[in-house]
Amino acid sequence: MTTQQMQTEQTGPFKMTVWEEENFQGKRCEFTDECGNIMERGFCKILRLDERGGEFQGQQFILEKGDYPRHEAWSGNSGYRTEHLLSFRPIKCAKHGDSKVTLHECEDLAGRTFEICDDYPSLQAMGWCSKEVPSMKVNNGAWVAYQFPGYRGYQYILERDRHEGEYRNYTEYSTQAHSNQVQSIRRVQH
Amino acid sequence: MTTQQMQTEQTGPFKMTVWEEENFQGKRCEFTDECGNIMERGFCKILRLDERGGEFQGQQFILEKGDYPRHEAWSGNSGYRTEHLLSFRPIKCAKHGDSKVTLHECEDLAGRTFEICDDYPSLQAMGWCSKEVPSMKVNNGAWVAYQFPGYRGYQYILERDRHEGEYRNYTEYSTQAHSNQVQSIRRVQH
Repeated sequence: MTTQQMQTEQTGPFKMTVWEEENFQGKRCEFTDECGNIMERGFCKILRLDERGGEFQGQQFILEKGDYPRHEAWSGNSGYRTEHLLSFRPIKCAKHGDSKVTLHECEDLAGRTFEICDDYPSLQAMGWCSKEVPSMKVNNGAWVAYQFPGYRGYQYILERDRHEGEYRNYTEYSTQAHSNQVQSIRRVQH
Repeated sequence: MTTQQMQTEQTGPFKMTVWEEENFQGKRCEFTDECGNIMERGFCKILRLDERGGEFQGQQFILEKGDYPRHEAWSGNSGYRTEHLLSFRPIKCAKHGDSKVTLHECEDLAGRTFEICDDYPSLQAMGWCSKEVPSMKVNNGAWVAYQFPGYRGYQYILERDRHEGEYRNYTEYSTQAHSNQVQSIRRVQH
């Protein structure tokens, strides 16, 4: 089944509805828990999608509550066609004001650091001196880091609960990360 | 000249550098003020781009400080090719904490309202009950409203200084707006 669009809700713990066709047409499935492969039918709620190959591999897309009538609505500018979504799982966020991540000048959580507690559509405007972030540690909550300013380009979902929040080099940001270029970052909305 | 990528800076009041080719190659121009048509050479600083036809017509893209090595870096998911950027102008932002916009349930600034002072990657998660916003008033600062959650889709740049901050129906959001669908909104970073 090709996932064409989705609608996420937050009534109860988690819920996501998926339709086979664009604009909420065709066969539909509801999920209220994670789903390693969309071919399974059950109740899963998703706030994070991974496409290709199932089992949370491939490009990541954060999904917050709302309507996504076409695959472009979640893929933004992914660089390649992304309508084949195969696995989803919920992620744990913190209260908006409690989220925190530390950026490091060097890999392996070394070098000078910059602590962030807010959303930054431009890290360079904030004072971070380059377009790269070699490593990061998530202290609290869940964050989305982006390749370009204004929350554009590849997105990397960073969580406190994944290997203790430590992302020691860019290959840990995502299996699809090609470089350590990170120019904007924001908290996942609770 | 086709604009292939840009780099924005904020040393001094305004500055933007434009290169003819991707990855910062080829002929370059620097701008420190608005430019109605990129074919003019002068110093212009840009935080907002309008493509097609010059003179601030067509699709809008907000540009905050950083590096944009290819047109996809600023166009995100625009729905059509956007490397032909022709005009730019700076926009006036407020301090992050002072920005405010009011959403209205009905057109013409009528109906119940919702005041917003923060960034919302999902208006529905905040409590706004639909995927549409029929009209808005910018009380302070500059905002970017997006078609889909997570700051994706068409972007509409809303300013206090444009017709007194009043956007009475979706045709005023942008000349390219096809509907009043707005599912995420954020302040422009100062």
